[in-house]
Amino acid sequence: MSLLVVGSIGIDDVKTPREARAGLLGGSASYAAVAASYFAEPRLVGVVGEDFPEELRRIFLRRGVNLAGLKVERGLTFRWSGEYFQNLNERRTLSVSLNVFDNFRPELPPLCREAPFALLGNIEPALQTHVLAQMRRPRFVMADTMDRWIQLARPDLLRLLKKVDAVCMNDSEARELTGEPNLVRAGRALLKFGPAWAVVKKGEHGCLLFGRDAFFSTSAFPVVDVEDPTGAGDAFAGGFMGSVARQRRADFGTLQRAVVFGSVMASFNVESFSLDRLRDLSAGEIKARWRAFARMGDYDRADAGAIRRAK
Amino acid sequence: MSLLVVGSIGIDDVKTPREARAGLLGGSASYAAVAASYFAEPRLVGVVGEDFPEELRRIFLRRGVNLAGLKVERGLTFRWSGEYFQNLNERRTLSVSLNVFDNFRPELPPLCREAPFALLGNIEPALQTHVLAQMRRPRFVMADTMDRWIQLARPDLLRLLKKVDAVCMNDSEARELTGEPNLVRAGRALLKFGPAWAVVKKGEHGCLLFGRDAFFSTSAFPVVDVEDPTGAGDAFAGGFMGSVARQRRADFGTLQRAVVFGSVMASFNVESFSLDRLRDLSAGEIKARWRAFARMGDYDRADAGAIRRAK
Repeated sequence: MSLLVVGSIGIDDVKTPREARAGLLGGSASYAAVAASYFAEPRLVGVVGEDFPEELRRIFLRRGVNLAGLKVERGLTFRWSGEYFQNLNERRTLSVSLNVFDNFRPELPPLCREAPFALLGNIEPALQTHVLAQMRRPRFVMADTMDRWIQLARPDLLRLLKKVDAVCMNDSEARELTGEPNLVRAGRALLKFGPAWAVVKKGEHGCLLFGRDAFFSTSAFPVVDVEDPTGAGDAFAGGFMGSVARQRRADFGTLQRAVVFGSVMASFNVESFSLDRLRDLSAGEIKARWRAFARMGDYDRADAGAIRRAK
Repeated sequence: MSLLVVGSIGIDDVKTPREARAGLLGGSASYAAVAASYFAEPRLVGVVGEDFPEELRRIFLRRGVNLAGLKVERGLTFRWSGEYFQNLNERRTLSVSLNVFDNFRPELPPLCREAPFALLGNIEPALQTHVLAQMRRPRFVMADTMDRWIQLARPDLLRLLKKVDAVCMNDSEARELTGEPNLVRAGRALLKFGPAWAVVKKGEHGCLLFGRDAFFSTSAFPVVDVEDPTGAGDAFAGGFMGSVARQRRADFGTLQRAVVFGSVMASFNVESFSLDRLRDLSAGEIKARWRAFARMGDYDRADAGAIRRAK
């Protein structure tokens, strides 16, 4: 099944306590599309400048990502540079140049309009709505977002949430958007904005999935060697939506498995800079990690046994 | 099966953003013994002063906690007062008076020496070792500890770890003791100090269990109304060791279930001040939460399905 993926595509310079690397493929749509490519046929919608290197474009092509919706505009590609601190959980942005991304107004070629599944990656909510409006009749659409839009474009974001099936954000963003410090309340409150499902990402602490009468919680896969956390949330969203598209359903069981595949793809992603690991996985590696993930949270769930009463 | 529980017993004054309460039953052994009492027969070893109120003592008796090892010394009971901030994750200690706890040197009555299971709650490591040395032939012993002893009594702590079957501490303490910022490495490194099992508590983010060739990870139960987080880690340890004692085994499957029961007891504990909720649970409530816990992390773990290869 094909999956529309829209979002940013950029060139990143990333510094970690161990290493600095420049000219890397970055952007929410890049991570998401490549992660999704192991499960579904991603159709990428985005914009790059004339400087976008052929070798970065080839990363998409090798993973079978359809680039009919990738526009090349006169000017430079979106660039971001950031630095991670000792524990790799905190970072600061050193510089951002929006470049051609500043005037990004996604227009979908026919192939992209037809996609039955869509991941509206993290861009301005009004643009996510604009993309959705061009789609013919998608079966399941998930929108990702970030603190920036919660603060600067809340009305647009709330309009968008009325129209999507699922919303995906991290824990602090869910708290901020809903005003609920308790994460369970926050997750449930997201559903009141419209979507049937809410996915709350907690980074290294895992993920929560909320439905009208459904709740699912997982740990993250425990990665021993985190090299570069950039794009983990996008790889999660791509793995999640790729898995949904492959299963062609969106019931609770499907979405649970999608959470696990999202977690698996995020765990690979942080093991290297940029998409170095994510772009070159074997089916065997993905299946082995799925099994390891399943094992680590599995236990005998049968009857709890006798509980001792007080004297 | 009987379970020896040693640790602090105190009277707490606790302030949260919503409420302040004084004269509460507190201390690591109090939480642990009451949590364990739903699964095993706790034999409490500790000290209180002459001022220790009969009504707090009755909390133990009603839960069938054996008090043969509870010493009443001339003087005042250990007192702690603390204040929690807005998100209930951070707190500061307002005052501590060790009182009779300052000279605590636990001597075990025969009944306590015979216990086949033991939880060495958070006290000075040298005292934990002193307790262990008096036990006849325990089958499984877990030691809890805290940052204070890692900093002030590291050699004593390392000596203790050589002699116990399991160690239990929170994530920041595991990182501090092992010098490993990565939590998976830290958990594995704990095993090198001696114990066959390491339990790393992550508070609201769940718990990791490490064995020589075993790894288990769970989320915490998502509590909607956290009232007072005091004692959550001790309730976890008590539920864990109570469950081990009830199962009379200490293989991986047993310890996995013990982690879940520990998580269940911790989740009840934070729903009220002190032991208000923990002291008065029904078998039905515990079983219902076990089932809810099992459900929230369960999904179709069968074959991952086809992975799409690159073009």
